[in-house]
Amino acid sequence: MKTNIFYHAGCTVCKSAENEILQLTKGDNLEIVHLGDQPERIQNAEKEGVKSVPAIVTSSGTVLHINYGASLEDLKN
Amino acid sequence: MKTNIFYHAGCTVCKSAENEILQLTKGDNLEIVHLGDQPERIQNAEKEGVKSVPAIVTSSGTVLHINYGASLEDLKN
Repeated sequence: MKTNIFYHAGCTVCKSAENEILQLTKGDNLEIVHLGDQPERIQNAEKEGVKSVPAIVTSSGTVLHINYGASLEDLKN
Repeated sequence: MKTNIFYHAGCTVCKSAENEILQLTKGDNLEIVHLGDQPERIQNAEKEGVKSVPAIVTSSGTVLHINYGASLEDLKN
């Protein structure tokens, strides 16, 4: 079964969004990726179309950017 | 039980987001409000903190703005 991936960077906005997403999805079929802790996954997130975090890449491949978070460019520095 | 409310305006971006949100939440406990069809709900959406659509106001009152949609100001015109 394909998974929805929630990308975040541990910031306050991200944690708040994470809590809401967990509530909305009940955590079903959801992978949570902290790009600050797992920078090796930034490149793949970009390939999937992620421009900023927090964002969800759904199992269908659609990227939902949530609120106005951190640019991936900023996470590389 | 408190409800999550998904606000949208019927645009392509909104419909795509709606499909993804329905998939993520399985439609559980989710009210979908089309502000183009129900402009009387714009004022309340603003009070809840919605700045643009598509957006979700979760049952805890947190607003998650999704992608870069239509400003509520544009919907009033």
